[in-house]
Amino acid sequence: MINEIDHPKSECSNFILPIKDTLNVLSGKWKLPIIGVLTYGKKRFKELEREIPHVTPRMLSKELKELELNGLVKRSVFDTKPVSVEYELTCSGKTLDKVLDAMKDWGLEHRKRQMTGQEDVRFPQ
Amino acid sequence: MINEIDHPKSECSNFILPIKDTLNVLSGKWKLPIIGVLTYGKKRFKELEREIPHVTPRMLSKELKELELNGLVKRSVFDTKPVSVEYELTCSGKTLDKVLDAMKDWGLEHRKRQMTGQEDVRFPQ
Repeated sequence: MINEIDHPKSECSNFILPIKDTLNVLSGKWKLPIIGVLTYGKKRFKELEREIPHVTPRMLSKELKELELNGLVKRSVFDTKPVSVEYELTCSGKTLDKVLDAMKDWGLEHRKRQMTGQEDVRFPQ
Repeated sequence: MINEIDHPKSECSNFILPIKDTLNVLSGKWKLPIIGVLTYGKKRFKELEREIPHVTPRMLSKELKELELNGLVKRSVFDTKPVSVEYELTCSGKTLDKVLDAMKDWGLEHRKRQMTGQEDVRFPQ
């Protein structure tokens, strides 16, 4: 991505739009905890509620619906008595792992640099 | 990251906090365009303003300051007449390239899947 040559503006938006898409699907207070829990396998609504501290049923339902609309989570309804509903990550949701790992690694390094005051250390030229 | 075994809640927050840090430093309408332009090298304020369509000087200044506080951008003032100010990515800012590349790749694939209606295709078990 880093390139010192001149660049047309259109190239910049080609680079920015897909990144914004990724940021958008992750935006919302409960998206990351939901994805985090679902990486361990299918969960029912009540299980998600139990495993995500402080989430309200209303917020959990809202953010699960957004994740479903974005194709990251699949909701399956089973004809049991009472009806049971399970949530799981789709292919799109599972492939987020590379992105989340890169974000986690950078976040950890960044925090270390901020704590040791090395935030403006430059790469050697 | 994906692991089907049981998991303690503390493990989840260890995974979520650094990701949230990364999301936070990128949040804001103009952070990505600013970082995008600065990956091509140092820029003066006026150059950034010219290269980022629709940004106002006030917003550009605000988001540059936030990037500076987060240690992603370095601001250098030169004692010329008139004084000149240059902005460039720090080490932290430059190492974001891996994260942004992963986000770009995922965003492109996600858009393709959404357009072809394959958003709920699952991995084979």
